[in-house]
Amino acid sequence: MSSEHLVSLEHKPEIIEKVGTPLTFRPDVRVLDCTIRDGGLVTNFNFDDEMVRALYLALSEAGVDYMELGYKASKKIFSPEKFGKWKFSTEEDIRRVLDDMPEGPMISVMADAERTDYHTDILRKSESVVDLVRIATYIHQLPTALDMIQDAKDKGYEVAINLMAASTVNERELEEAVGIFADSDVDVIYLVDSFGSFYSEITRSYVNKYMSQARKGGKKLGIHAHNNQQLAFSNTIEALIMGTSYLDTTVYGLGRGAGNCNTELMLGFLKNPKYHVRPLLKVIDEYIAPLKKTEHWGFDIPYMLTGQFNVHPQPAIKYINKPEGTYTDFYDGLMEED
Amino acid sequence: MSSEHLVSLEHKPEIIEKVGTPLTFRPDVRVLDCTIRDGGLVTNFNFDDEMVRALYLALSEAGVDYMELGYKASKKIFSPEKFGKWKFSTEEDIRRVLDDMPEGPMISVMADAERTDYHTDILRKSESVVDLVRIATYIHQLPTALDMIQDAKDKGYEVAINLMAASTVNERELEEAVGIFADSDVDVIYLVDSFGSFYSEITRSYVNKYMSQARKGGKKLGIHAHNNQQLAFSNTIEALIMGTSYLDTTVYGLGRGAGNCNTELMLGFLKNPKYHVRPLLKVIDEYIAPLKKTEHWGFDIPYMLTGQFNVHPQPAIKYINKPEGTYTDFYDGLMEED
Repeated sequence: MSSEHLVSLEHKPEIIEKVGTPLTFRPDVRVLDCTIRDGGLVTNFNFDDEMVRALYLALSEAGVDYMELGYKASKKIFSPEKFGKWKFSTEEDIRRVLDDMPEGPMISVMADAERTDYHTDILRKSESVVDLVRIATYIHQLPTALDMIQDAKDKGYEVAINLMAASTVNERELEEAVGIFADSDVDVIYLVDSFGSFYSEITRSYVNKYMSQARKGGKKLGIHAHNNQQLAFSNTIEALIMGTSYLDTTVYGLGRGAGNCNTELMLGFLKNPKYHVRPLLKVIDEYIAPLKKTEHWGFDIPYMLTGQFNVHPQPAIKYINKPEGTYTDFYDGLMEED
Repeated sequence: MSSEHLVSLEHKPEIIEKVGTPLTFRPDVRVLDCTIRDGGLVTNFNFDDEMVRALYLALSEAGVDYMELGYKASKKIFSPEKFGKWKFSTEEDIRRVLDDMPEGPMISVMADAERTDYHTDILRKSESVVDLVRIATYIHQLPTALDMIQDAKDKGYEVAINLMAASTVNERELEEAVGIFADSDVDVIYLVDSFGSFYSEITRSYVNKYMSQARKGGKKLGIHAHNNQQLAFSNTIEALIMGTSYLDTTVYGLGRGAGNCNTELMLGFLKNPKYHVRPLLKVIDEYIAPLKKTEHWGFDIPYMLTGQFNVHPQPAIKYINKPEGTYTDFYDGLMEED
C-alpha cells in the first residue's frame, strides 16, 4: 500500500449514543474502588489493617459505592508466606477490618479463573460480608469463568466478569465471548484495558460492541482502565457517557504498572452530589502518598511504550523497579522482542 | 431545583464530525513542540545552549514540525537579570543555537500581548530565522492582539493567535472574539485550556464553536492543553479528530504546573510515518528526566484541584514548590478563596 492511501481528509461523522448530559447524574453509576486489589499488585498485597480501615472510612465519606478488598487466590497455588493477606482475602481478614465500621461501600473481591478454589473459598452469601464477586478471566478460560459465575450466583452474590486483555483478542471471538456472558447469570460485564493501549475512539468502539450484546441479556457494563498512555480517566469518561455503569478507580491511581483511573479524578467529574473528593485527600495524605517512598506506580515512559506496543506491562514493571540502562535501551529491548 | 431534576437517563446522540480515521494520517497536522517556551515557565527560561541544540536535533529526527524557542518578552518590562534568555529569545540567541544545525523543525516564538515590544523586537521575516509568531492574548487585550497579528503578517510571518483561559470567558464574547480573529490576517486560531479544566465533551463543544468561525475565514485550528486532570493528551486527540491541525506538545510533558500533552505520547498516536518516538527518548534520558531532580512539573493533586475548580494553577505551583500543610489543607485553602 502506498503512503498515499494512508492520507485522509475524509469527513466522517461518529455518532456517540450518550446517556445523560455533562450537568446531570445517572442513578445507574457505581464507582468501584479497587485500590487494595489492584494496588495489592504493587505492594505484594501487604496493607495493614489500619490503612484498610482508613480507606474504608474515606470511601464511605466520599460516597464511593464499592470497595474491592483483594483476590480470593488459592493457597494451594500461591504461598501465604510469599504474599500479603489481601491476595487471599479470607472472610476472617475482611470481617476483622470491617469490625465496628459504620455502614459504607459494598464489599467486592476478585477471583482469577484457574487460580482460585472458588467452590470452597467463596462462602455462601449468607455466611459472608462480601456483596460482589468479580471474576477475572482470559478468553481461553471461558468455560471455567462460566462455572465460577454460576457458582457465585448460586451462592447469592452479585457477580461481575472482567474479560482481561481485550486488546489482544480477535474481534469475532471477543464478540462471541461477550454474547455468551450476556446469556449467563452474570450481572455486570467489564471492558478491561489491561495493557493501557486504548484510545478514545477504540474505547467507544468496544463499548458499542459490548453494549449491543449486554443490552440483549439485560446486563450492565463496567470499565477497568490502565494509565499507560495517561488515558485511564479519559477512557473511563468515554465509556461512562456511552452508558457504562460500573467504573473502576483507585485512590491516587495506585495500581499495577502505570496504575488506574484515580478515584479523586472520577469523583471530581461525576455530578451526583453524594460524591465528595475531600475525604480521599486525607487518606492520600496519611497513607497513600507516603507509599510512594518505597513503591513504584504511575505513568512513566516504559509503561507508555508497552501501552503503545499493546503488550503486557511486565517488562516495564521490571525496569521501573530496577532500571537497567536508559529509556532508549528499554525501547530497543521492546523492539527486539516485537 | 430538586435533585430529581439532576438525574438523567436521557439518551442523546452527540455527533462528532471526524476528519480522517484511526488508521490514516492527515497532511494538515502539525506538531508544535513548545518544551522550551512552556517548560521555560518551570525553569525560569534557563536552558543551556547544549540542551536546546540536543532538543532541536531530537525533534528534527522525530519529525516534529515546529519547535517553539521562547517568549519575545519586553526587556523594559522584565529584567534580563531575573529571567533566562528564552524569556526574550533574541535573534542572536536563536541563531547561535541553530548555527550549523541540519535542517529541522520550523521555528516559533511567542509574544504576550502587552508584554512585548513587538514593533521593534520582532524583526522582518527576511532578517530572522523565525517562521511562526504566536500571539498569546487574554480576551480584554483583543485590540492589541489584532495589531500584533497585523504587524507580524506585514513583516512576513506565519501567525497564530492563542486566546488564553477560554474556560473563564463568557461564551457569547468568546464566539465574537474567535469571529474577529477569523476575519483577521491570522493563519491559526488556538483553543487554549490554560487551567486544565476541560473534559472531552467540553473540548468537542469548543472545537465545534471555533471550527464554525474558523472555516468562514479559512483559518486552521490549534489546541494547547494542560494536564491538570490527566486529560491533556486525551483532549488534544479529541480536538485533532474533529479537525484541529496544530497540536501543542512538550517533551516529557515539561511545562507550567501539571505540564502539557507529552510529545512522545502524541507521536505514538499519530499515524504519519514521518513521526518517530525513539529520538525523543534520548533527549529525555540525557536532558529532561534529569531536570526532575531540581524542577517540579507534572500531574499532582493540587493541580487536579485547581483544574476541577477551573482556577489559575498559581496556588498549586506555589504549594508544589514549597508545600505548606497537607493536600487536604490545600483543598481547604482553595475552598475559602472560592
